[in-house]
Amino acid sequence: MDVRALVFDVFGTIVDWRSGVAREAGRLLGAGIDAEAFADAWRRRYVPSMDRVRRGELPWTSLDDLHRASLHELLTEFGLPGTPDTVRAELVLAWHRLDPWPDSVAGLTRLAQRYVIASLSNGNVALLVDMAKHGGLPWDTVLSAELFGHYKPDPEVYDGAARLLDMPPEQIMMVAAHVHDLAAARARGLRTAYIHRPGEKGPAAPPPETDPDADVSVASLTELADHLGA
Amino acid sequence: MDVRALVFDVFGTIVDWRSGVAREAGRLLGAGIDAEAFADAWRRRYVPSMDRVRRGELPWTSLDDLHRASLHELLTEFGLPGTPDTVRAELVLAWHRLDPWPDSVAGLTRLAQRYVIASLSNGNVALLVDMAKHGGLPWDTVLSAELFGHYKPDPEVYDGAARLLDMPPEQIMMVAAHVHDLAAARARGLRTAYIHRPGEKGPAAPPPETDPDADVSVASLTELADHLGA
Repeated sequence: MDVRALVFDVFGTIVDWRSGVAREAGRLLGAGIDAEAFADAWRRRYVPSMDRVRRGELPWTSLDDLHRASLHELLTEFGLPGTPDTVRAELVLAWHRLDPWPDSVAGLTRLAQRYVIASLSNGNVALLVDMAKHGGLPWDTVLSAELFGHYKPDPEVYDGAARLLDMPPEQIMMVAAHVHDLAAARARGLRTAYIHRPGEKGPAAPPPETDPDADVSVASLTELADHLGA
Repeated sequence: MDVRALVFDVFGTIVDWRSGVAREAGRLLGAGIDAEAFADAWRRRYVPSMDRVRRGELPWTSLDDLHRASLHELLTEFGLPGTPDTVRAELVLAWHRLDPWPDSVAGLTRLAQRYVIASLSNGNVALLVDMAKHGGLPWDTVLSAELFGHYKPDPEVYDGAARLLDMPPEQIMMVAAHVHDLAAARARGLRTAYIHRPGEKGPAAPPPETDPDADVSVASLTELADHLGA
């Protein structure tokens, strides 16, 4: 393999969205709600909301704006329709303040010594920049679905990353905890690394599906650095 | 001023293009050429080549591709029409390997503690990523004309930076050594910082024009960090 750049899924792969969103929901909405259930319910609206954009039912809409729209529905569902706008705005920013998994910063820092490293996330640029500041993620640059006007797993996202990095796709490795993302990247010629994140959906969730077709399978980003000699 | 992000011109403002290009021209073309004159002549083609894109005479063309086209003309002009393609390709990469001015990394590192910092350059994304790796520039993200399909000083570049950073333009400060860049940024509502780089065009060049309309005028990025309390 002649890999020169690594691009990373972010939600679930680099950061722990469930704990972070639950923490902010608990802080901002009070002890009366089940914060983990709130985080799970919000996240369940993630793929359907992007799919409306992917199918052309909505024009391009940033992830912050999709999060905002699904939050409004969710607050009604949780019996909190009177939540003030200022609190809603803060809740949307919960997704900007997610903590990295314990191995993420150490692994990325090592990988950056040898490879170009970039996010390749459905999060918008401002979200990803805030998250990197918050968690100390040492991206060489932020790549986002927003730059391409398409959400993963649309092929335009993977093709766009190769175009902006000015590398043939086989010199780029997509790193993700989700098989559908890796399969879509492979279909566009990228190398793939599967990272096992059994904690992503909480302790009660079944273990995530693994990816037998990935070039590399690891349990952490430090293990990925070991594997890639970084 | 309620500035939250700083965006930076790169060629001349952050890195010393003249010494870097001359060094690579000397290394790759041999002692027979006047390497500084070669660098100056290549740079003189920079604005006219982008202007062809800005006027719509050329479709969007990356800076690497503009550099490649002007290099071919230049080698003929310098009596080196037989320069092999491999050497031409290496010469184009000279622009990816420019060294920062002595204060750049220290100043950016301090500014990044308090502000979002990003390039806002006519260089393409891959060029800016390589340059950041080469020189240790700690960008939070790379913003490039390439993302907007427009070259500075087109307004789309400054507007696009504000859109991707999701900030009102008055919360963004453009930092540059060139008055035309700052004036264009101001016209789109950004704050501006002028940085005096008398060495940019070499010891024989007249001192650069300063900018009486800038919010801040400094002689280095460390002085900018002092001024902005970072």
